[in-house]
Amino acid sequence: MSRNLVVTVSALSDAQRGQILDAARKSGFSVSFFKNEEEALPAFRDAEVVFGHSVLAARTAPDLLWLCTPFAGVDQIREAGFLSPDAVLTNSSGAYGVTIAEHTVMVTLEMLRRQPEYDEIVRQRRWQRDLPVRSILGSRVTFLGTGDIGRETAVRFRAFAPGAVTGVSRGGKNPGGLFDETFPREQLDDVLPRTDILVISLPGTKETFHMLDARRLSLLPDGALVVNVGRGSVVDQSALARELRAGRLSAALDVFEEEPIPPEDPMWDCPNLLITTHVAGNMTLPYTRRRIVELFLEDFDNYCHGRPLLRQVDPEKGY
Amino acid sequence: MSRNLVVTVSALSDAQRGQILDAARKSGFSVSFFKNEEEALPAFRDAEVVFGHSVLAARTAPDLLWLCTPFAGVDQIREAGFLSPDAVLTNSSGAYGVTIAEHTVMVTLEMLRRQPEYDEIVRQRRWQRDLPVRSILGSRVTFLGTGDIGRETAVRFRAFAPGAVTGVSRGGKNPGGLFDETFPREQLDDVLPRTDILVISLPGTKETFHMLDARRLSLLPDGALVVNVGRGSVVDQSALARELRAGRLSAALDVFEEEPIPPEDPMWDCPNLLITTHVAGNMTLPYTRRRIVELFLEDFDNYCHGRPLLRQVDPEKGY
Repeated sequence: MSRNLVVTVSALSDAQRGQILDAARKSGFSVSFFKNEEEALPAFRDAEVVFGHSVLAARTAPDLLWLCTPFAGVDQIREAGFLSPDAVLTNSSGAYGVTIAEHTVMVTLEMLRRQPEYDEIVRQRRWQRDLPVRSILGSRVTFLGTGDIGRETAVRFRAFAPGAVTGVSRGGKNPGGLFDETFPREQLDDVLPRTDILVISLPGTKETFHMLDARRLSLLPDGALVVNVGRGSVVDQSALARELRAGRLSAALDVFEEEPIPPEDPMWDCPNLLITTHVAGNMTLPYTRRRIVELFLEDFDNYCHGRPLLRQVDPEKGY
Repeated sequence: MSRNLVVTVSALSDAQRGQILDAARKSGFSVSFFKNEEEALPAFRDAEVVFGHSVLAARTAPDLLWLCTPFAGVDQIREAGFLSPDAVLTNSSGAYGVTIAEHTVMVTLEMLRRQPEYDEIVRQRRWQRDLPVRSILGSRVTFLGTGDIGRETAVRFRAFAPGAVTGVSRGGKNPGGLFDETFPREQLDDVLPRTDILVISLPGTKETFHMLDARRLSLLPDGALVVNVGRGSVVDQSALARELRAGRLSAALDVFEEEPIPPEDPMWDCPNLLITTHVAGNMTLPYTRRRIVELFLEDFDNYCHGRPLLRQVDPEKGY
């Protein structure tokens, strides 16, 4: 019986499919490519390996041994659970840091420099120049989450001469000495009062659910900016909205408790808020797609040689 | 007869006025502060030194020996000319690099990541995520102008891992080794074909007028982005608009041939263009105001001790 690799990542180039085909053939795998998981459903029956963000594969593939999602976040697949008791889950952490870092710097500067208001001025063909702006220079930036996303973002923020670059993570480690200081999550309450810009890149897990609740948001100083590029569930959205409406905080949110945001949701009209539609880390950047394939092929080689997979997800941590 | 310093910079804090007062008293100067140049007009009659962007002072102060403008651009004052034959002009080059660099990174990322289109999507409360975006990573960035603004911007771009960072300047020097390569302006034509992002920070002079004309714009590769934070006169605006309407180039312009842009000007509707209202380097950032005062006080000390002024403007160069 042949070993089957099913690929449901639709955005690949011909060259990238060729790379996957070559690697599979060398290891005695048959490969089938599908545009989406629905079309791939019959193929999951005999799939040993699936490369795709497929809840359907997790739920329906009886002999699945490895599911590699091209995403960094695995909450949907983890919540769905695996039909196959032997299935292992890996993600594509390491492919999104660059694009999410660029998004994060962009929206931070947009909020500090009041670009949403200036955009409205330009839309009205007015010529106004006197809105007081702020700068990353001298600002105290805290990264809640110091994985690939937090690190790539911190590297870029550093070039803007912030007043402090602090990392808060599970273990409180300082990867590459990139942060001035790092703290474990238990000390988040001590760090929030000295945070002007809070960059959240945490996964959505039970442990991170509403980590930024009303009490913790209230610890941020007046005028602080909250940037969330992790998961919407990490922030108590109603509590944040109250702070935004009060004019005490501002925020740039790429992720929400419910996505898409429902049409009648008051968040659409919330002041001091820049909404983006979960675009920070999707696969629209060619570099990201290239990295996703590279990372998969690296772990595919590990898999075929019986070596440990590099990006295996810890169900508790969520990454 | 007392020596008179007239200050028409309106945005100063009490502390900053105090610093100027202290320095002036120590050197035997009387200081008068005004909200604008019109109110200061009578005081210009006896002014030896003026600190302000005042065309009126240049035109009407008969005994003026030194005019220090808080701006970096001096085209208006230079064009007006001085009544006093002994007057020397300095600018505040060095105060705007930080704020203009942040603006430039912001608008560059907005254009690469199609933020104006996404803004429109959010305004319509739609949820769309699939616009193909681009990255600074790997992009070839050329800085036309390598003064304070070009340098501060290059430092920040470097952190985004561009493919190349090239400087083009009058002398072709490489200040601080910040650029991979530098060229004199005469070689601009060789650099344009290998430029994905062109950052222009040149002053407005006869020499720079329409330096980016239709022919030079045509040398840029398809899809290149033009960011102008210098002076609008450097770019042939009609020629650029044709490239933007053809979809061949995109641009983020903070400066225009006519400012404010007239209400009926077709630029307002030009596709592939992000308009900002000359806000990149104004005095709305506290850091900028602080630097302006520091730089003035530094040269005021030089002035009072008969030493050369550090930021004296060369009328030919425009900086």
